[in-house]
Amino acid sequence: MSKVFDVAVLVGSLRADSLNRRVALALAGMAPSSLALDLVEIGDLPFYNPDLETEAPPAAWARFRARVARADALLFVTPEYNRSVPAALKNALDVGSRPYGKGVFGGKPGAVVTVSPGAVGGFGANHHLRQSLVFLDVPVMQQPEAYIGGAGDLFAEDGSIAKAGTGEFLGKIIHAYADWVARLAR
Amino acid sequence: MSKVFDVAVLVGSLRADSLNRRVALALAGMAPSSLALDLVEIGDLPFYNPDLETEAPPAAWARFRARVARADALLFVTPEYNRSVPAALKNALDVGSRPYGKGVFGGKPGAVVTVSPGAVGGFGANHHLRQSLVFLDVPVMQQPEAYIGGAGDLFAEDGSIAKAGTGEFLGKIIHAYADWVARLAR
Amino acid sequence: MSKVFDVAVLVGSLRADSLNRRVALALAGMAPSSLALDLVEIGDLPFYNPDLETEAPPAAWARFRARVARADALLFVTPEYNRSVPAALKNALDVGSRPYGKGVFGGKPGAVVTVSPGAVGGFGANHHLRQSLVFLDVPVMQQPEAYIGGAGDLFAEDGSIAKAGTGEFLGKIIHAYADWVARLAR
Amino acid sequence: MSKVFDVAVLVGSLRADSLNRRVALALAGMAPSSLALDLVEIGDLPFYNPDLETEAPPAAWARFRARVARADALLFVTPEYNRSVPAALKNALDVGSRPYGKGVFGGKPGAVVTVSPGAVGGFGANHHLRQSLVFLDVPVMQQPEAYIGGAGDLFAEDGSIAKAGTGEFLGKIIHAYADWVARLAR
Repeated sequence: MSKVFDVAVLVGSLRADSLNRRVALALAGMAPSSLALDLVEIGDLPFYNPDLETEAPPAAWARFRARVARADALLFVTPEYNRSVPAALKNALDVGSRPYGKGVFGGKPGAVVTVSPGAVGGFGANHHLRQSLVFLDVPVMQQPEAYIGGAGDLFAEDGSIAKAGTGEFLGKIIHAYADWVARLAR
Repeated sequence: MSKVFDVAVLVGSLRADSLNRRVALALAGMAPSSLALDLVEIGDLPFYNPDLETEAPPAAWARFRARVARADALLFVTPEYNRSVPAALKNALDVGSRPYGKGVFGGKPGAVVTVSPGAVGGFGANHHLRQSLVFLDVPVMQQPEAYIGGAGDLFAEDGSIAKAGTGEFLGKIIHAYADWVARLAR
Repeated sequence: MSKVFDVAVLVGSLRADSLNRRVALALAGMAPSSLALDLVEIGDLPFYNPDLETEAPPAAWARFRARVARADALLFVTPEYNRSVPAALKNALDVGSRPYGKGVFGGKPGAVVTVSPGAVGGFGANHHLRQSLVFLDVPVMQQPEAYIGGAGDLFAEDGSIAKAGTGEFLGKIIHAYADWVARLAR
Repeated sequence: MSKVFDVAVLVGSLRADSLNRRVALALAGMAPSSLALDLVEIGDLPFYNPDLETEAPPAAWARFRARVARADALLFVTPEYNRSVPAALKNALDVGSRPYGKGVFGGKPGAVVTVSPGAVGGFGANHHLRQSLVFLDVPVMQQPEAYIGGAGDLFAEDGSIAKAGTGEFLGKIIHAYADWVARLAR
């Protein structure tokens, strides 16, 4: 039996009906059997504040850190807010990176998918996130780059993917990522 | 009598004894009489989530938006977290930028000061913030760039600035900013 | 009589039939009478190398520096190469920024227009260029941001603009830039 | 016998007595026996211009492309010019990335070392280069990040490294890079 890699998926939008959440679920549905994708809650994490880093940090921080710590790999699916990473996702990075020397991300292979209604496809958020992932020692898949633009009409009313080309591209991404994880996971 | 410009100061750290807060207060103390600096609370803002953008959005959002809307200018003083902008500050941008078409930042002259204990002085956070401020239509002072590194020993025990060179540089920054505000504020 | 501002236009592509050059010429044709746009040659500048910074630097460097020094304002129109600024344009910045303390760009109001056949519209080049312009003390117009994607079919065979919407957007950009120059030029 | 990986080293400064060249040579001297570092000339490459991409492109382009194509891995050592990548190095990326579909960089493991006299250590150039390397499909070592600041007095008059701490850090970098190459090279 082959190894199944546990992938922590962090979605940058908190909307209940988020396009990004739907893309993340679509990727989970297309993933090869070597990957098990799990969407990890980030909306309940108090803002990172060193003053809260006591012997009893916020329970949501502890829960999040423990969940990510046991993952084999990381997948980020996010919109762009103001040409950068949404605060909720940036906060998850800040919380998971601490306490100093005990961050939970280091060494886990990652990929970044940005999704937006506009044409630019979240390019700014994508690369800002990548800059943080250098510091966090997350080796990020380089190609295919995933800037999913025009996402407003990506899904049909029944929840299926309405744009065949984008659907195929998402499949290509998740399979390339599976190869990346297989090469890099420890 | 000359105009006094109301400057909303956003500090990126939530620590009670934050170095960045102290730098912001030092800048307030050095500012020429044409500027009135006011530190605006951002730590209580719920994460931006479009689902909360109802007719009755969170009270903290409304308070923050109203405060910034009446400011003449913006000053950002922030550490770098994971080579980018701390989530609490990014969230303040996200909250203030919405609802669509009703953002509160546009057109107000701004400046970015980054402060960190390390040598790099928050360069990554500084430029990520600037990228967002392009979208938000905040004209940002270009020079002097303010990457305040080695900030761990910037202040003496009595709260005064222990490094004369850095103190002079902060004075230079706030005076250049006063000129920038005088040129650009509407 | 009103002041006419001398605008040095730097085009990032060296192709004879460059789309970017055509966009630059289109902008020149649409500009209000307060602006005189002049495309400045950058393709003949030897790579910046401090060893060449003698009492007799390369003639092309001297010519370029003198031309930009007398301009009132700067307009950059460029494709994206490898998610960043084309080398020829970056070299023009490097040459014009030196010798130390004698750079020719400082204080001149600027704008950045990126043009590409793809959907992303040169976002990466646009913001990398902006980061350099912080250091060079060029106040850059923030809005409208100009990421001109899908440029492969922007022009008709007779050289006119085939996409009416993009044509209107270019007009909006050059008029906003004229306002920016009028406010900021010294 | 173990494999020895052929590493193409691209140095961003063209100065004869460049600090970056000296750092590159120091790294070559410290490298484990699994790596053979070779400094590849980039200063003679004509600016990338699609019009020159004929059946007989410039000889220097052909020479550079052939040299990089046979390398197993890539090491970039560069100063920062105007908060970004020096034009000569960016041009090497532009030349090596073309013709479309025949780029020579893809898949080769890489590392980025930035070296500057100032405190910031070339952070801006480092991350701009990394953004291009995403597009070029070069998997880049994330940690240790290498921002070598204060490089003006790094070398003693006899050419040896005068700062022991920096010397040790360079050794750490080249050994981490050797591990990265061993994991990723094909």
